[in-house]
Amino acid sequence: MSVKAANREAFERLRRARPMWTTVRLAREALGLPPMTLLHAGPPIAWERMCGPMRGAIVAHILYEGWAASVEDAQALAASGDVAFAPCHSRGAVGPMTGVISPSLPVIVVEDRVNGATACSYIGEGSGVQAKFGGFTPEVIGRLRWIRDVLAPAFEMALERDGPLDLRDLMAQALAMGDEMHMRNAAATCLQIKALAAPLAAATDASTLEAILTFMTRENDQFFLTWAMAAAKAAARAIDGLPGCTVVSAMARNGVEFGIRVAGLGDRWFTAPAPVVDGSFFPGFGAADANPDIGDSAIMETWGLGGMAMAASAAVLRIVGGASFADARETTRRMAEICVDVNPAFAIGALDWEGTPTGIDIRRVVETGIVPAINTAIAHRQFGVGRMIGAGIGTPPLQPFVDALVAFGESVPR
Amino acid sequence: MSVKAANREAFERLRRARPMWTTVRLAREALGLPPMTLLHAGPPIAWERMCGPMRGAIVAHILYEGWAASVEDAQALAASGDVAFAPCHSRGAVGPMTGVISPSLPVIVVEDRVNGATACSYIGEGSGVQAKFGGFTPEVIGRLRWIRDVLAPAFEMALERDGPLDLRDLMAQALAMGDEMHMRNAAATCLQIKALAAPLAAATDASTLEAILTFMTRENDQFFLTWAMAAAKAAARAIDGLPGCTVVSAMARNGVEFGIRVAGLGDRWFTAPAPVVDGSFFPGFGAADANPDIGDSAIMETWGLGGMAMAASAAVLRIVGGASFADARETTRRMAEICVDVNPAFAIGALDWEGTPTGIDIRRVVETGIVPAINTAIAHRQFGVGRMIGAGIGTPPLQPFVDALVAFGESVPR
Repeated sequence: MSVKAANREAFERLRRARPMWTTVRLAREALGLPPMTLLHAGPPIAWERMCGPMRGAIVAHILYEGWAASVEDAQALAASGDVAFAPCHSRGAVGPMTGVISPSLPVIVVEDRVNGATACSYIGEGSGVQAKFGGFTPEVIGRLRWIRDVLAPAFEMALERDGPLDLRDLMAQALAMGDEMHMRNAAATCLQIKALAAPLAAATDASTLEAILTFMTRENDQFFLTWAMAAAKAAARAIDGLPGCTVVSAMARNGVEFGIRVAGLGDRWFTAPAPVVDGSFFPGFGAADANPDIGDSAIMETWGLGGMAMAASAAVLRIVGGASFADARETTRRMAEICVDVNPAFAIGALDWEGTPTGIDIRRVVETGIVPAINTAIAHRQFGVGRMIGAGIGTPPLQPFVDALVAFGESVPR
Repeated sequence: MSVKAANREAFERLRRARPMWTTVRLAREALGLPPMTLLHAGPPIAWERMCGPMRGAIVAHILYEGWAASVEDAQALAASGDVAFAPCHSRGAVGPMTGVISPSLPVIVVEDRVNGATACSYIGEGSGVQAKFGGFTPEVIGRLRWIRDVLAPAFEMALERDGPLDLRDLMAQALAMGDEMHMRNAAATCLQIKALAAPLAAATDASTLEAILTFMTRENDQFFLTWAMAAAKAAARAIDGLPGCTVVSAMARNGVEFGIRVAGLGDRWFTAPAPVVDGSFFPGFGAADANPDIGDSAIMETWGLGGMAMAASAAVLRIVGGASFADARETTRRMAEICVDVNPAFAIGALDWEGTPTGIDIRRVVETGIVPAINTAIAHRQFGVGRMIGAGIGTPPLQPFVDALVAFGESVPR
């Protein structure tokens, strides 16, 4: 198969994908996570090289799992070599920001009913100090337990009662409602609440339901993000290992390095230092507080959303600090230059329902010098803070795309 | 005060308006509706001249009120002169389509906390055969009773518990999510469900809650419309009777006539035959089945939404049958030619957050020959069908604007 044919096949798999949210399970069960193992965002990284927020999230999850009882002990355990670390992507999972997943964390399970892949992500924690931003206060740990003991079982029962939720359909609607699905999931979150409210009412008692609905509805406009990410990862898994294919199958950051994987090159990572995100900051914070780019959430751009779909979302410009709506349209048009095709399943109203550019071809990235535009949140860099401090547009380094193309060239049999 | 100053004052009142949904009451109480009185959409009209769907809605409400027990008796009663008919607008109410409101129908009560006016509308019935489209089957009457006995009290309790709902804020968000608030209220309905879900869970038992959430969430994307209309009417009431003002304070259709009221001319109607709506029809229906334009919903355009805000909603073009998104932007720009100013409270993302054209000046309409573009649903014309059969863009006749301007000229003291 020619590269062109392989890339067309990759695009078709990405286009046809139909990820359904089927259930919620503990990570040990859904991902086969061994004891004393923690997953994290981005390419592989050892404890010693981890950034502040990721170390914080590791501590949070060691406390949550009960492997240690104090922050100091948790740090000592993490440094001892007794805890194994691996990328979420190594097990078909994705996590925004630090992306830490521990064995008894509940994960949402998403199955692509067309291509057959499964992917998982966790349930977002709302706003304020969060484990995913590296927070480890008692409130953070308590909220993780509430998610495990109350929210996750309710979701599981609601899905059992009402059947799986069609995420592609929901995301297509949300795209027509001003979300680009990475930094704006306000419409998708509303649609998710709309879809779940009645089944949740049937599946649980009134006071639990009130607590769940309050959690889902108050200051939590990004609640749907991890569902969007699990859907995108399920879609992207369908191209993992596709021979002769130069389409990107993952882009992710661990807060120190930015890395990509390419369909035809399997699970090999190509990395470079993570960029600092050009963004707008919450009051009281600035670029000096910003951790370099972090999180698996660039899986959204891998599936043609986020920065690729900028023209769908005038509203996201206010969040990531873009200029005019004409620039947003221009971003989407520029992204089309590095993608295989546009995906009609994700149509943009303001472009007269043209699809989103999908299937990033590393050859085109290297040829044009255009790198994917990645919308993203910005984490505070300091250990123990555990907060989002802004959002912006990440510009990944070109080098991993160049390195991957060189490796691809070397991999072709002669 | 000059006309220019009066119109600026009218615009400022429309801009400042902050309608809040405060409660639900029976119409007899909220609107002081006397016994044996029915309100209807549009300018005044007698039973003899009413169109098929409006007669059907009158029958539905006579049955609902128990004033007659059969369709034949209800028609005889309506023709007897023993039932009084008056426009919704005569009592600060608005109703989409036939707009029929009877004394024991629950109405949502909206108060503009800035200008001080109150307005009411009813609670939508969902999809299928509906009283508001002229249906009067036992299912329709049963649903009206369920709304009165179950839904309305639950809403009342939720609002009592959680305080009033800020409709302007919700509508501004929905506008950024692809609604134009007349023929597309999909985002607003989601936002409404999001706002109400937790307080409803606290206010009612689980099975009632499930029934309510199912009703609000299933095939009911226009659920919010009557809230938008009540909000717009509350805002528009602030300019009723403003001396020297040539801004339109109401546009409404009774299915036979299209009529307008003008702020400086009080409650006087200027009418002409209602146009046939240029629209797209549901499968199996066509222009021959269409009733002429009907409903008070053009109050949305009176407040700068609906057709005025076309550029906010690529999605509505699919519903009303528009062409390209460029045309939608052009419609909004054209509407700006007949309005006093643009309202920053309702900002359109695709126009880089320019506000919606607001405050239709009859002088500019007559000067330019540009009439307001009105997005609207289309009712089946036949008595007893009671269904929506399509949607489109209504082009009102110019004559009422001309007549109103002549009357305005005559009203000015010399």
